[in-house]
Amino acid sequence: MLGLILTVLLGAAQASLSAPASQRLVEASLREGRAFEALTELCHVAPHRLAGSAGLTRAEDWAVAWLRDRGLENVRKEPVRVPRWVRGPARLAVASPASAQGTYLPLLALGGSVATPPAGLRAPLVIVTSFEELRGLGERARGTIVLFNRPMDPTLADPFAAYGAAVEQRSRGAVEAARAGAVAALVRSMTLALDDHPHTGALRYEPDVPRIPAAAISTRAAARLVEAARGGARLELELQLECRDEGEVEAHNVIAEITGRERPGEIVVVGGHLDAWDVGQGAHDDGAGCVQAMETLRLVHSLGLRPRRTLRCVLWTNEENGLRGAVAYKDAHESELAGHVLAIESDRGGFAPRGFETNATGAAFQTLEGIVRQLAPYGAAFLRPGSGGADTGPLERAGTNVMQFVPDAARYFDYHHCGRDTLDAVHPRELALSAGVIAALAWSVAELELPLARPELPAAGSR
Amino acid sequence: MLGLILTVLLGAAQASLSAPASQRLVEASLREGRAFEALTELCHVAPHRLAGSAGLTRAEDWAVAWLRDRGLENVRKEPVRVPRWVRGPARLAVASPASAQGTYLPLLALGGSVATPPAGLRAPLVIVTSFEELRGLGERARGTIVLFNRPMDPTLADPFAAYGAAVEQRSRGAVEAARAGAVAALVRSMTLALDDHPHTGALRYEPDVPRIPAAAISTRAAARLVEAARGGARLELELQLECRDEGEVEAHNVIAEITGRERPGEIVVVGGHLDAWDVGQGAHDDGAGCVQAMETLRLVHSLGLRPRRTLRCVLWTNEENGLRGAVAYKDAHESELAGHVLAIESDRGGFAPRGFETNATGAAFQTLEGIVRQLAPYGAAFLRPGSGGADTGPLERAGTNVMQFVPDAARYFDYHHCGRDTLDAVHPRELALSAGVIAALAWSVAELELPLARPELPAAGSR
Repeated sequence: MLGLILTVLLGAAQASLSAPASQRLVEASLREGRAFEALTELCHVAPHRLAGSAGLTRAEDWAVAWLRDRGLENVRKEPVRVPRWVRGPARLAVASPASAQGTYLPLLALGGSVATPPAGLRAPLVIVTSFEELRGLGERARGTIVLFNRPMDPTLADPFAAYGAAVEQRSRGAVEAARAGAVAALVRSMTLALDDHPHTGALRYEPDVPRIPAAAISTRAAARLVEAARGGARLELELQLECRDEGEVEAHNVIAEITGRERPGEIVVVGGHLDAWDVGQGAHDDGAGCVQAMETLRLVHSLGLRPRRTLRCVLWTNEENGLRGAVAYKDAHESELAGHVLAIESDRGGFAPRGFETNATGAAFQTLEGIVRQLAPYGAAFLRPGSGGADTGPLERAGTNVMQFVPDAARYFDYHHCGRDTLDAVHPRELALSAGVIAALAWSVAELELPLARPELPAAGSR
Repeated sequence: MLGLILTVLLGAAQASLSAPASQRLVEASLREGRAFEALTELCHVAPHRLAGSAGLTRAEDWAVAWLRDRGLENVRKEPVRVPRWVRGPARLAVASPASAQGTYLPLLALGGSVATPPAGLRAPLVIVTSFEELRGLGERARGTIVLFNRPMDPTLADPFAAYGAAVEQRSRGAVEAARAGAVAALVRSMTLALDDHPHTGALRYEPDVPRIPAAAISTRAAARLVEAARGGARLELELQLECRDEGEVEAHNVIAEITGRERPGEIVVVGGHLDAWDVGQGAHDDGAGCVQAMETLRLVHSLGLRPRRTLRCVLWTNEENGLRGAVAYKDAHESELAGHVLAIESDRGGFAPRGFETNATGAAFQTLEGIVRQLAPYGAAFLRPGSGGADTGPLERAGTNVMQFVPDAARYFDYHHCGRDTLDAVHPRELALSAGVIAALAWSVAELELPLARPELPAAGSR
């Protein structure tokens, strides 16, 4: 009903100056927003910007210049030590039987994978859909290449739930395969699409488990291998990965502010992560989150507004393969943490708004829900209990209120971590809507009369 | 909160047979739906299917065969007299000044437009943004070509509201221009996109006003003309349209049913319109609505369900330029109208669900709201007061409960009535989500213990 009322209010061709600032921010984003233009620049300046790469440095310099040129305050880079991992060439082929040679098997090494021997490795393929099934193979898994082939469940209403239920195959597959005696691990790409785009992502090794090479193959490639192995045919694969671990180098979190007019020591953070995988352009993941945060400050500044509290844009670094930026931000700002009223993260793409998620509780939750309710006409219709996301995780664990932007998710995993995550996958109006509602939310929290109470911690053992 | 609970319930990899049928319908659509496959067929069998065309006949035959092949009941065609209007070639160019000759001006005649003289016509251009501005020109508009150039307002939260505020330029522009003495009318295309795709649509002539030719030009073409006319430069345009009115021919509404197990004379209609403009493939407008309706019955049938009331799929004809199918359906089913419990229309594209709109009032509204609430996990989060749409309009005016599917609208007017409305503009998961929620809604209403009360008519004069 409020949505209807607002829709009617919005019937005026342009909001008058007497309209609430939050509404003026969304309308300015829809009318003359700059988020899509900024994303266009980022995707061309630094399409590949993995931690430790020259592309990430270019992205940092671009972001600093963009923020300074828009007249924002305290624009700076804060140093972060990050890993430098380099993908190198990759090759996967069926060695036997001869009838299956030439099967098209597009692949991407998983982030952090070790290399194969320089000449590659050759081993029989086993296909499983769970770690339990793999363990049940016993000695039959020794010396093999294991393909983890459990699809994301399309019937789950939320694709992120389907991702959460499948992604252990990517993150833990190499460890589980090595424990079973395998020589390499493959994983069916984490996507609901059936296509030939492999989707990379990070893996984790464990100290006492041999490090074996691991790669993602496209969903169609996985289907081809299943078909070739039908009826118990024994496939041998050849895998060659030339990944290199090149130690650590310096990267940066990029920060900009609008200093609060009354309570400058109280801070509302809005941010995304500037690093991206070295495929596609990181347009949705997380170029969109970066330009939404940058645009939030630009919109406020361009309307001549100065909030009660400080608005801070944070572009975290190394979210994809280390989370060092998130940890470094929290460490560097330890003395300010009590003044962090809310940290808003956007890392689910630049799609049309659906709502928000937060760890806030009690009266703080209700206050935030009241603010979100004003955004319903623009599609952000709910606030639900949850978390902020990966980059606000360290802040959340330190007792800060965090919040996550939740856009429509139907298309997200078509693009996530693969070559399709390019500018043309982002719709200008959807990005303008999302930047506008994030700006309106950040502004409204920064303007609150009273700060939000910090979240009640759950009872010990329940997290 | 209910959404959260359902999300948790949905955590099971596949819904058990004990899950509510509405949930099983959505999950079946997501897991093994056929809506996208059906839309692929329709877009290839009959991409152009304007009333009276051979394409529309092919579409009818395809739909009848598809519905019969899926084992549905009472599959039939009901005759409707429709207009046959043929577009013919079109050409628009700047004749003078010489500096502006060659300006790129993509155009599409408006549906129903008369032709220009065979050799075309040449006249000065005037550009206005409202009918009032045109009237203010007085004699200066005589003998001109009028361009109606008021953009859709991007700041309106709902693009349909922006369309509603701008579309009179297309539907009434020719009449207003003729009254001012102009020889032709052009209209800036109804879209929020700035591109070179002209968007057609119907115009209306009036009995006592001269019929002048009218066409839509792309938004970039409109911008080019504004630029060329800057500083008062006098432009002359040449326009040639070869449209033909070829009288009336017979077309059909296509109907299929699942007969109700307890109350076969009570009917829940679900439908879209089978005709489409003769550009693009009518994938969103309204191929999507057709396959959602067809898929609704297929899903119910494929799960072995038979509803308490009759479920009827109606593919109306001639929505775009006459609405004859909607009127013919109401006339042919006059004796059954009291048994029409609800008519659900989908004609806003195959995007992700957002909610529904209805003319239902009082307890009926509350009952429908309770059903819609179950669909929130899939994105259909609201039921708002409103109408059913164009094709359910005659039923609504006859006192029937009607309902309209409301999907996300950010992209709709990129495709509406233009060459971009092709299969690749439809996302398979979004279409499966939308077909699933429409099926779940239709099923739930057909299963209600008691029929819905008919809507309270508003007080005289308020409509």
